[in-house]
Amino acid sequence: MERVCVLGAGSWGTALAMVLAENGHDTLVWTHRAEQADEINQHHTNTKYLPETVLPSNLRATSDIAKAVAHSDTIIVAVPTKAIREVCEKMTSILDKKVLFVHVSKGIEPDSLKRISEILAESLPAEFVEEIVVLSGPSHAEEVVQHHPTTITAACGNIVAAEKVQDLFMNQYFRVYTNEDVVGVEIGGALKNVIALAAGITDGLNYGDNAKAALITRGLAEITRLGVKMGGNPFTFSGLTGMGDLIVTCTSVHSRNWRAGNMLGKGMKQQEVLEQMGMVVEGVRTTKAAYQLAEKFDVAMPISTALYGVLFNDVAPKEAVDALMMRGKKREIDEMMP
Amino acid sequence: MERVCVLGAGSWGTALAMVLAENGHDTLVWTHRAEQADEINQHHTNTKYLPETVLPSNLRATSDIAKAVAHSDTIIVAVPTKAIREVCEKMTSILDKKVLFVHVSKGIEPDSLKRISEILAESLPAEFVEEIVVLSGPSHAEEVVQHHPTTITAACGNIVAAEKVQDLFMNQYFRVYTNEDVVGVEIGGALKNVIALAAGITDGLNYGDNAKAALITRGLAEITRLGVKMGGNPFTFSGLTGMGDLIVTCTSVHSRNWRAGNMLGKGMKQQEVLEQMGMVVEGVRTTKAAYQLAEKFDVAMPISTALYGVLFNDVAPKEAVDALMMRGKKREIDEMMP
Repeated sequence: MERVCVLGAGSWGTALAMVLAENGHDTLVWTHRAEQADEINQHHTNTKYLPETVLPSNLRATSDIAKAVAHSDTIIVAVPTKAIREVCEKMTSILDKKVLFVHVSKGIEPDSLKRISEILAESLPAEFVEEIVVLSGPSHAEEVVQHHPTTITAACGNIVAAEKVQDLFMNQYFRVYTNEDVVGVEIGGALKNVIALAAGITDGLNYGDNAKAALITRGLAEITRLGVKMGGNPFTFSGLTGMGDLIVTCTSVHSRNWRAGNMLGKGMKQQEVLEQMGMVVEGVRTTKAAYQLAEKFDVAMPISTALYGVLFNDVAPKEAVDALMMRGKKREIDEMMP
Repeated sequence: MERVCVLGAGSWGTALAMVLAENGHDTLVWTHRAEQADEINQHHTNTKYLPETVLPSNLRATSDIAKAVAHSDTIIVAVPTKAIREVCEKMTSILDKKVLFVHVSKGIEPDSLKRISEILAESLPAEFVEEIVVLSGPSHAEEVVQHHPTTITAACGNIVAAEKVQDLFMNQYFRVYTNEDVVGVEIGGALKNVIALAAGITDGLNYGDNAKAALITRGLAEITRLGVKMGGNPFTFSGLTGMGDLIVTCTSVHSRNWRAGNMLGKGMKQQEVLEQMGMVVEGVRTTKAAYQLAEKFDVAMPISTALYGVLFNDVAPKEAVDALMMRGKKREIDEMMP
């Protein structure tokens, strides 16, 4: 039995906490909303995020981050990407022993173009960080809490740390693979949202299954090209956190990014789409980051660049697709390498 | 303008002939049914296979294979896999000049375990075969004839031959990439049907999107492992003929293999499923071939092996999935390599 906390009680954080508690670990969830912590402790539910789930009775919650941190040898960071620096700041004054950090966020920080583990590494006191592991893969929280079979990857440059996380989570319905390639896992996880937006657009244009499969495949090829140039292992992108997560995100109508793209494909303007979605569409921010990363690392990313034109330069979606189809003749494998 | 024929007037052969005719090539379709040839010539339709399509008026058909062969510098073989040897035999007595062959079939010959291009190479007189190119990728015929954007790969050890095929087909809605890796393209195209069957099973069990994404991803990993051991390039499997075609086949309810798997997942026995489908389910034959190839090349293919157990040894689908989930702890990338 290990002492673990999960910071953030959204659907994914709660589902992961449930897996840990079911595996017998002494698990505490932190949320900044006291009433949510009370609900978890008293009723074993988190109705806002997982309306139909009964949580294990050994899973407890707190709204006191100091208590959560003091409780734990392993801390799972499951707050929204934009809250990570703030939560790290809170922890900095509390940490007084070495802790294994795991993060489950997907994104690239705007402007700085930093990956999540880079943000954690520079925001937390180095002497108290044992390792930083990223946990990523194709995983709807709603399916995990129903014990549907799910596979995921734990990545860390130090494979022993990744294996610790594998041991914490792995059970009959939750299979964990390890990988040493943090860059590849983080880049795949973030950039899939760009391709999901684009897949929504082609679906909105009613372009069919052939076009969508092409987009996903060639989308992964350009993500791979960028990721390899940034230091990732090309095989990571063929794995659960690349191809696997991309498939789930591009083929599920529940994906927020796909839905936003779908509206764009049907002819709505970006501003209208964002208003109608009523929340942040991560893929829009990530498209900008992808465009900047392609420039910074001098990598051809035709799909991301075309989508940037649609989102930020008023290019019509149909024109963007036609331009992609009429690029020069290419060899398939050369096009995958940077 | 080139002189081309397509042997076989099923939906895919007809769609490809349409692309060629629209590109201005002098194109002849061969079918062994005289009335089908008449229909194409007189009414510009092929209602049995593409009920809502009007074919270009410059596309002609014949039921005389000698005429088709004599007409052509390039021959596209688009007959069902099991008819290939018979059609080759017919051509052998007719061929009197060097011809570029292209095939578009997906499968492994039972027992001999040969790939399609190997069957062609040993069945046709070597002195009249310029090269053999395989054309494969995610491509529903029904979408191609509607001019929906489609991408595909032309593969040949001789890249110049692949580029000839690229030139023949490429246009604004049909984008062709070239690849030198015939083994990888053929193995990916054949074995996707095994994974489509398995994906149908997990959907039949209502295991959800996480499980299906895992299956597709880990399925591609084991196809890659086998294909690399057989001499394929690992990157081919991340391309259109590997990942791309796999996605289309596993996520489309129109896929015959997916539907057969779905019935198995819901509890039907193989014999009942085959009776209900009323036709050959290619994936069943290919599962046997995959099982034999895994043995022959000494490669771990846990998903194909589990499916073999379900199809041929009466293992319950749920037990097979549970066993896959509880395999030993693995590193993700090691598992991709043979």
